[in-house]
Amino acid sequence: MKTYTEYLTFQTAHKREIVLITPQLELAVAKSGVQDGLCFVSAMHITAAIYVNDLEDGLIADIEDWLEELAPSGVDYRHHRTGEDNGDAHLKSLLLHHECTLPVTRGKLDLGPWQQVFYAEFDGQRKKRVVIKILGT
Amino acid sequence: MKTYTEYLTFQTAHKREIVLITPQLELAVAKSGVQDGLCFVSAMHITAAIYVNDLEDGLIADIEDWLEELAPSGVDYRHHRTGEDNGDAHLKSLLLHHECTLPVTRGKLDLGPWQQVFYAEFDGQRKKRVVIKILGT
Amino acid sequence: MKTYTEYLTFQTAHKREIVLITPQLELAVAKSGVQDGLCFVSAMHITAAIYVNDLEDGLIADIEDWLEELAPSGVDYRHHRTGEDNGDAHLKSLLLHHECTLPVTRGKLDLGPWQQVFYAEFDGQRKKRVVIKILGT
Repeated sequence: MKTYTEYLTFQTAHKREIVLITPQLELAVAKSGVQDGLCFVSAMHITAAIYVNDLEDGLIADIEDWLEELAPSGVDYRHHRTGEDNGDAHLKSLLLHHECTLPVTRGKLDLGPWQQVFYAEFDGQRKKRVVIKILGT
Repeated sequence: MKTYTEYLTFQTAHKREIVLITPQLELAVAKSGVQDGLCFVSAMHITAAIYVNDLEDGLIADIEDWLEELAPSGVDYRHHRTGEDNGDAHLKSLLLHHECTLPVTRGKLDLGPWQQVFYAEFDGQRKKRVVIKILGT
Repeated sequence: MKTYTEYLTFQTAHKREIVLITPQLELAVAKSGVQDGLCFVSAMHITAAIYVNDLEDGLIADIEDWLEELAPSGVDYRHHRTGEDNGDAHLKSLLLHHECTLPVTRGKLDLGPWQQVFYAEFDGQRKKRVVIKILGT
């Protein structure tokens, strides 16, 4: 069995940003030498998420609106008594889930025709990390 | 280490449908020969999900109502400017999550007494695929 | 490849309770002897969840409020016709997701600085189980 670990670093220009990461994951799978197995990818922060969906600008804006509706900013969260102002970012991270597993077949991510992987930042403008762990043969 | 890959195809009669898939997953685990490991299962489409919960008709209808409330159809999503009308199906898929990992112990899915695995279709009536990837010893 | 399986049992004092489980998972990783791989952790019940976020009391109360808002109790769910009264617990479990995968590097959970793992109970006061499955080298 092979294992491969890689860390990505993101520093987004905006507080909230959705970043396509499929190409970086494909590169990691190629470097791992794994032909058949699983590619696990996880935000290492509690105000970001990893998700899989369509690369379509309108839909990405819809997802951002939907997250804001179900996990709104501008609320007087208890968490803000610590001096933080990012309570909504924690809830948005929980809603989308901070990690994702992807199948690897014949040395490539085994995704459907429209599946793309995204890093969703909800409290950016500073360095944050993502861990990739690939297991397989 | 063994790896095993299988694809399931679904073409639901209705646009939205929740389909029990535990038996097909148990069969895949048996075919894989894996005694101890993980069974990963993922929709390969961005308008479907995999989830684990109870096989109880009332609860399944409750889940459908709840998904419609938190990710409603009939909204003028930006995604619809592309000619699509399935914006809600993308959001429902994100809410339930498109993939799931299941433990395998002694050659069987190691589920709790009421845990069943479901394929949730939100934009059906056409062929859609699910990938199963089993890793273990 | 090594595999390791362990079951945790929880009986919470309250119906709803959020329990930190990072120390128990770290112990399981140490016992497994796995240096590099994945640690999968899953509730074996359909009214509980596993999630990763911050160990901060205010935020934990915010998460509880948020779950209650998006998946409210006191609703006349169809599931209650079976004699159950825990429809909301099923929806809360779906919202947070019942399972989580964690990376293992150099024999330890490879978590970010504020990432902690929690067992979220939504229908407690009775014995419930969590399964841990660790795979790696």
